[in-house]
Amino acid sequence: MKEYQQELDAFYKKHGWRYWSPLAILARLFEEGGEFARLVNHLYGDKKKKDTEKEQELEEEMGDIIYTLMCFANSNGINMDRALRKSFDKMTTRDKDRFGKD
Amino acid sequence: MKEYQQELDAFYKKHGWRYWSPLAILARLFEEGGEFARLVNHLYGDKKKKDTEKEQELEEEMGDIIYTLMCFANSNGINMDRALRKSFDKMTTRDKDRFGKD
Amino acid sequence: MKEYQQELDAFYKKHGWRYWSPLAILARLFEEGGEFARLVNHLYGDKKKKDTEKEQELEEEMGDIIYTLMCFANSNGINMDRALRKSFDKMTTRDKDRFGKD
Amino acid sequence: MKEYQQELDAFYKKHGWRYWSPLAILARLFEEGGEFARLVNHLYGDKKKKDTEKEQELEEEMGDIIYTLMCFANSNGINMDRALRKSFDKMTTRDKDRFGKD
Repeated sequence: MKEYQQELDAFYKKHGWRYWSPLAILARLFEEGGEFARLVNHLYGDKKKKDTEKEQELEEEMGDIIYTLMCFANSNGINMDRALRKSFDKMTTRDKDRFGKD
Repeated sequence: MKEYQQELDAFYKKHGWRYWSPLAILARLFEEGGEFARLVNHLYGDKKKKDTEKEQELEEEMGDIIYTLMCFANSNGINMDRALRKSFDKMTTRDKDRFGKD
Repeated sequence: MKEYQQELDAFYKKHGWRYWSPLAILARLFEEGGEFARLVNHLYGDKKKKDTEKEQELEEEMGDIIYTLMCFANSNGINMDRALRKSFDKMTTRDKDRFGKD
Repeated sequence: MKEYQQELDAFYKKHGWRYWSPLAILARLFEEGGEFARLVNHLYGDKKKKDTEKEQELEEEMGDIIYTLMCFANSNGINMDRALRKSFDKMTTRDKDRFGKD
């Protein structure tokens, strides 16, 4: 994700934009997560509905969540590749634990 | 909050409505929380704006969150008064801890 | 909920506590909502588990969410009874719409 | 992010794991978001604290959020690169609008 992070940063620098404060980005993350939740509930909730347009929107909402996370990462010096790699490592370890128990 | 819980339940029963499944109500809680977050960010975020209309909406969003929680409570047998009382008790204990340390 | 709001306020005043800023309370709401989500997923998610202890915790988490909302309401002059009443009114109207369409 | 998505998918296939249902992954997203919120509030909230250990955890929580989103994307056929690209496009457009108004 490094290139995306750099592209975002270059864009902000070029246009003189500043990232929001951590708490404000967090509030935005909550908001974007909520919009994602609304669509997930619509598409996969108690009354499932097939709805191609909403599926399209779902992709957009997911993009907005990643974008928001990336703003946070950039303004607070977080390497998203390393962050994700750690979660992947946890997944692998969890797997080993399983086999260990078998 | 007992009376509110009973009023809600009576209304649902009277109209033959059923509460959603726990995961679907949770998704709704996320959604309502996100709408609340959007307004909080607008009113109190990095660029604070005085906006009477949005303050009005804030009240409504808070109502929707409590309403959503109440649906969850009613469909899963949770006594909201007791729930809140426990949180109040934690607050009181936290206070005692403080004084204990002084 | 008026009495609860007053009790909370009296406690804060008596002990010289101050409510957090709106964005910080919102962050706490996200956190408490997330803990609630963890339990809901545990109890009602893909692998449902009967677990009396977790059900107990669920009540506590719900209390913490209401408590957090109440801190926000008190520090920003929101009347929670009126807020919830509005959501109840929407519910009633939604019902009327239904019958109107039948 | 395509390679990550493929790596995740290959791992799940190899070990016979199945992704959770959409609503259960959403609940997990709420949970992970909440843990992220807790740390953000600790580090950047009303009482800011410098805390290197927590900063480390923040990276991990961000990884967990992306991981959770990726599980959702993989099980629902979402291309995360395209999703993010759309959000970047919105950013660019927003910028043009600005200049247009100047």
